[in-house]
Amino acid sequence: MQNSYTWVENTLNDYMLMVRQVLDDYFPDKEPRRYLYDLVPAYPNRAGKGLRPGLCIATCRAFGGSVRSVLRSAAAIELYHNAFLIHDDVEDGSEFRRGLPTMHKEHGVGIAINVGDAMNVLSVRTLMDNLDAIGPTLTWLVFAEIEHMVRESVEGQAMELGWVRDNVCTLSEADYLRMILKKTCWYTCMHPCRIGALIGSGGSADLDSFNRFSYYMGAAFQIQDDALNLEGEHARYGKEIGGDIFEGKRTLMLIHLLNSATPREHGRIRRFLTKPRERRSMSEVSSVYDLMLKYDCIKSARTTARHLAGAALREFHLAYGKLPDSDDKRLIESIVLYMINRDI
Amino acid sequence: MQNSYTWVENTLNDYMLMVRQVLDDYFPDKEPRRYLYDLVPAYPNRAGKGLRPGLCIATCRAFGGSVRSVLRSAAAIELYHNAFLIHDDVEDGSEFRRGLPTMHKEHGVGIAINVGDAMNVLSVRTLMDNLDAIGPTLTWLVFAEIEHMVRESVEGQAMELGWVRDNVCTLSEADYLRMILKKTCWYTCMHPCRIGALIGSGGSADLDSFNRFSYYMGAAFQIQDDALNLEGEHARYGKEIGGDIFEGKRTLMLIHLLNSATPREHGRIRRFLTKPRERRSMSEVSSVYDLMLKYDCIKSARTTARHLAGAALREFHLAYGKLPDSDDKRLIESIVLYMINRDI
Repeated sequence: MQNSYTWVENTLNDYMLMVRQVLDDYFPDKEPRRYLYDLVPAYPNRAGKGLRPGLCIATCRAFGGSVRSVLRSAAAIELYHNAFLIHDDVEDGSEFRRGLPTMHKEHGVGIAINVGDAMNVLSVRTLMDNLDAIGPTLTWLVFAEIEHMVRESVEGQAMELGWVRDNVCTLSEADYLRMILKKTCWYTCMHPCRIGALIGSGGSADLDSFNRFSYYMGAAFQIQDDALNLEGEHARYGKEIGGDIFEGKRTLMLIHLLNSATPREHGRIRRFLTKPRERRSMSEVSSVYDLMLKYDCIKSARTTARHLAGAALREFHLAYGKLPDSDDKRLIESIVLYMINRDI
Repeated sequence: MQNSYTWVENTLNDYMLMVRQVLDDYFPDKEPRRYLYDLVPAYPNRAGKGLRPGLCIATCRAFGGSVRSVLRSAAAIELYHNAFLIHDDVEDGSEFRRGLPTMHKEHGVGIAINVGDAMNVLSVRTLMDNLDAIGPTLTWLVFAEIEHMVRESVEGQAMELGWVRDNVCTLSEADYLRMILKKTCWYTCMHPCRIGALIGSGGSADLDSFNRFSYYMGAAFQIQDDALNLEGEHARYGKEIGGDIFEGKRTLMLIHLLNSATPREHGRIRRFLTKPRERRSMSEVSSVYDLMLKYDCIKSARTTARHLAGAALREFHLAYGKLPDSDDKRLIESIVLYMINRDI
C-alpha cells in the first residue's frame, strides 16, 4: 500500500514540477520587486501536494489530451489556489501556512492582500495565453469554468467567515457539507476534473458527469485536512496544535462537538468562541480538544471522510469508467485513497 | 463656469445611472446574502462622481459608438474600482469612505476582503457577457485592457504600501508621479478612455494615442483628491481632518514637506510616521498639517495639479481633435477643468 502512495506522490510531484516551470514564466521579473513580485512565488514555492493541477492534468491525459494543452489551465488553478490561501490566511487570522509564517505575518496585512490580488490577475494572463494551445472556443470555456470556480469559492468563504464572526453555534453536518461544497470542492476537485476533461476531450465530454465524483472527493479531502490540523500539528509542532480551534473555525469536529456536548460544556465552548482570537488561551484550546476526544469527534470525522471516499470510488467508475485504462486514470482513482490515508 | 460644471455633473450622473442599472443585473439576488451579496452593492451605491464609466462611455460615443455597446465594460470598470477601494481601505486602515464607515470597519476585515474578491469575479462575468453586444474580437481586446489595468493598479498599490510600511522618507515628485501613474492613472482615466475608443471605433483607433492625455488627467485628479482630503475634510467633517496624514500616505504634499522641512522638523515628522497608526495623535496630525501650511505644500500641490490639467488640455486636442464635434467630446474636455476645480 505504501508503495502505491509513493507512486501517487511522485506522479503528482512530476506534474507539479511542470506546473512550476509554467508559473516561473508568469512570475514577473521586474519592479516593484520588494513589495510585490518577490513575494508572489512565496506560497507556490512552499511544498504542496499538487492535488489540483494533478487532477486537472491526469484527467486531461486520461481523455487522450496532451500535458501541453492543459498545463496553463492547471497553472492558473494553482495560482488561484495560492492567491486564495493568502487572503484566507488574513481573513482567518492564521499564523502558519505549510510550516512557515503566513504572508501577512511576515509582510503585513496590506501587502499580503495586494500580493493575492496580483496573483489573481496573473492567473487571468495565464488563461488568456491558452489561446495558442487550445484555440478560442476552449479558451473561452475554460474561462467560464474558472469564473464559476472563483464565484463558488467566495460564496463558501463568506459562509465560513460569517459563522465565525457571528459565533454561530447551531450548525448541522448538512450546513458544513454545503459550505465545503462551495469553499473547497469546486476549486479543489470539481473544476480541476471538469477543465481537464474539457480540454482532453476537445470540448465533447459531459462535464457535469464529474461533479459527484469530485464533490465526494473534495469533501473527504477537506475533512481529512481539518482532522490533520488537530492531530498532525499536535504531533509535529507541539505548540501550534489546533490552529483551527484557535481560529474558531467551524470544522466538522467542532460542529459534532457542539451537537454532542452537555448544555454546560456547550456554554463553555460558546464562551470560548465568543472571545476575540487573541484572548483565547492555549489551555482553553486544549480543553476544547479534550472534549473533542471525549466525544470521538475526530474519529467520527475520519469515518465520515472514509464514507465520502467510498462514495467517490463508486462514482469514479461512472465518471471515468468508459475511458480506456491508463496510468492517469489509475492515478485519479488512487488519489482518493491516498487523500484519506495521508498524514500531511 | 458653475453652469458648465453642473452640466458635467449631470451628464456624468446620467451615465452613472445607466451603469447602475447594469450593475443591478449583476448583483446576485441569492444566498449567501448577509455575509456577501447584501454587501456587494454597498460601495457602488455610495455617491461617486462616476468619472471612470463617464470617460469610457463618452469616449465611445465621441467615436460614434452606442452606449449599449460600451455599457458592460463601463460597469466592469466601476465594479473593479469599488473592489479596489474595499481592499485599499483595509490595506491603508482607512476608517471612512465617501462619508460612511469603510466596509471592514462595519463588517470586519475578513468579510470585507472576501466581498472585494467577489466583486472582482462579478466584473469578469460582466466582461464575458460583452460577447453578444460587441463580438468575440472586441470582447477579447477589452479583456486584455482590463488585465493590464488591474496589473498596473496592484503594482502601484505595492509601491505605495511598501513606502508606508518601511517608512520611506526620501521620495521625490518623480517617484510620486510614477506611483500614481500605476496606481491611479491607468484605471481612472487611461483604460476607460482606451476601452471607450476601442469599442467606439470598432477596434480601429490607435489606443496609445490616448495615453498622454489620460495620464495627465489622472495625475491631476489624484493630486486634487489628496488636497481635498486635507482641505475638504477639514471644513466638512471637523474631526476626520487629514485621514491621509493619519495613515502616513505618501501624498505629494507629504513628499514636498519632507523635502522642504528643516532637519529638526524632518526628524519630528519621521518619528510621527514611525509610530503605528493607532498611536498617532490628533495633535501630531495637526502639527504635520500646520507644517504643510507653513511650506505651502497644499498650494504647491494644487499648482502641480493645474499644470497637469493644462498639459491634459493640450493633449486632448491631439487625442480627440480629429473626431467630429459632439457633446461627448465637449464633456471629456470639460471634465479636465471640472476635476481640478471641484470641491468634493
